[in-house]
Amino acid sequence: MSELPLPPGSTLGILGGGQLGRMLALAAARLGFDVAVLERDADSPAGRVAAHTIVGPYADPDALETLAAVAAVVTYEFENVPADSVLILQRLGVEVAPGPEALAVAQDRVAEKQFLNASGAPTVAYSSADTAEEAVAATAQMGAPVLMKTRREGYDGKGQRWVEHPADAAKAFADLGGGPVILEAPADFVRELSIIAARGRDGATAIYPLSENHHEGGILRRTLAPAHVSQALAEQAERIAARILSGLNYVGVIGIELFEMKDGRLLVNEIAPRVHNTGHWTQDGCAVDQFEQHIRAVAGWPLGPTEPHARVEMLNLLGDEVDAWAKLAHEPDTRLHLYGKRDAKPGRKMGHVNKLHPL
Amino acid sequence: MSELPLPPGSTLGILGGGQLGRMLALAAARLGFDVAVLERDADSPAGRVAAHTIVGPYADPDALETLAAVAAVVTYEFENVPADSVLILQRLGVEVAPGPEALAVAQDRVAEKQFLNASGAPTVAYSSADTAEEAVAATAQMGAPVLMKTRREGYDGKGQRWVEHPADAAKAFADLGGGPVILEAPADFVRELSIIAARGRDGATAIYPLSENHHEGGILRRTLAPAHVSQALAEQAERIAARILSGLNYVGVIGIELFEMKDGRLLVNEIAPRVHNTGHWTQDGCAVDQFEQHIRAVAGWPLGPTEPHARVEMLNLLGDEVDAWAKLAHEPDTRLHLYGKRDAKPGRKMGHVNKLHPL
Repeated sequence: MSELPLPPGSTLGILGGGQLGRMLALAAARLGFDVAVLERDADSPAGRVAAHTIVGPYADPDALETLAAVAAVVTYEFENVPADSVLILQRLGVEVAPGPEALAVAQDRVAEKQFLNASGAPTVAYSSADTAEEAVAATAQMGAPVLMKTRREGYDGKGQRWVEHPADAAKAFADLGGGPVILEAPADFVRELSIIAARGRDGATAIYPLSENHHEGGILRRTLAPAHVSQALAEQAERIAARILSGLNYVGVIGIELFEMKDGRLLVNEIAPRVHNTGHWTQDGCAVDQFEQHIRAVAGWPLGPTEPHARVEMLNLLGDEVDAWAKLAHEPDTRLHLYGKRDAKPGRKMGHVNKLHPL
Repeated sequence: MSELPLPPGSTLGILGGGQLGRMLALAAARLGFDVAVLERDADSPAGRVAAHTIVGPYADPDALETLAAVAAVVTYEFENVPADSVLILQRLGVEVAPGPEALAVAQDRVAEKQFLNASGAPTVAYSSADTAEEAVAATAQMGAPVLMKTRREGYDGKGQRWVEHPADAAKAFADLGGGPVILEAPADFVRELSIIAARGRDGATAIYPLSENHHEGGILRRTLAPAHVSQALAEQAERIAARILSGLNYVGVIGIELFEMKDGRLLVNEIAPRVHNTGHWTQDGCAVDQFEQHIRAVAGWPLGPTEPHARVEMLNLLGDEVDAWAKLAHEPDTRLHLYGKRDAKPGRKMGHVNKLHPL
């Protein structure tokens, strides 16, 4: 097994070469680690700042073996890492964090809802369906409208359909590919919030202040943090985060998306077992950001502080919005974070800015 | 010529693969640049976080040509880059910053003193000598003790000797290799301060607050910033910085070491045309640190703000002091910056910590 806490100079592995992997790699480098990225693309945003890139799919046993030969600890930027890849790495003696329980829950929306409700982290009402007939029956039973989502895969609003009448459920089921789905009752929320939390290998937790999030077309546009919330709401969120972290025996940073309901209750929308877009504000708002926090946790280091020193408005730069970089660079209170992606395809996350305001 | 401001996605070249190159590379990556490092060591701290490492000495024309083929803008972490290397890069159409004037002044302690005094940036009295006889005569004329330093090379207290009596000057001259030397009158200072300043390609300047520095055996141990100074002293330092920056038609970050004299005057000890160890506090004390500031300047971007949001005590981790990383990681207000160097030789700069305090 690996020596933990992982000493500086060791190599830390990251599955995935996108912007989250890149920002994790930069944080790891600051702490003196080398980084090895396993990624299908030889020229990835994370690979270009890492000591090693291993080119291959996450499921390739040879690539995983190469990774295990250099990296004693491996983490990932993406919750749809195959469970088998984690098992292969573990058999090769690698410490993988977050662990397989978190991945299993995050990869199946029904398992996620079951886990959350069992942990005392409430969600909207939901049902599941494996066939079109079951989908129609479940919609009728729940009462339309319902939000139908594939049980697996899907992100940024992909893989989901609103079903306005039970009669439309069969078509939505087919549109989503005909595989297992979850049906979720609408959340009559007043705000979307999220909480970024971390748990170390010693069970200690560190929780950042809540952020308020604004999506467009299923994609995050804007985060305001720390969100203006009552002490009671903050404590409710922290209780939820603590239950999720301990329920998963979690190691690393987790992103927990929440609905703030009219009656003041918080429901969990979904969890992401990784650093999270709604936590990017911590890069310029906190002494230890979510990326360093994640590296600390997975490397077995003690967690860092989570107090903010600024109020931050985070804006994603999607597609050709990144072309505004020169204008943004002129704004004194705007910090630019660009991902080094080659093609600014429409809707693609190319970078973000953190606009700083006094607390 | 290069397109300026240099667009994100471009490759930025760095001569030198040590810790300053590494921290510059990390800052460049945050802004979306790729980095190419030219460095003799294939496994360098900076190379391990860069998209490209070109292995070779700084003076190798083939290596410089390879660098010029990928990098439109080149900077350096080390003031003893050969002047010819800069000329070769410029002939290949590369924008090199800081420019050759700054390098020429920084590489020759006599040229440096001449430039500083001519610019209205006062220094201690000094003399120069090319032979042992001249050294003896100059010491006698100035009056011992004097500090004899090689005109070129030397850093962290290397390449210098105190001469207590004119009769000892010949031996000191021989000990220093028998090449040209400078003789400096002692500075009866009350504190060592420094100021980190930047100038953009548009001539705009940005100046960080003064820091107070403590050396041991010629090596920086500790920086406190912002230093407790009067408004008048701060303004005196800013005037000196502004004169040096404009006098050199400077582009980039410069480190200016100062002596605070008993009578309240500031004398310039030396200048370093690069990011500077006494500016590391800005990483955790300012929204834009000296590394991003330098990248912004050399890439032709507008400069960022320099206001501090914390008071910082920076401590260098020399040699095996870096073995305290696990203990330091437990201190909530201590930020660790480790360089990924393989061997913790005695006195070698292995990392630093920034200890944060409220302003």
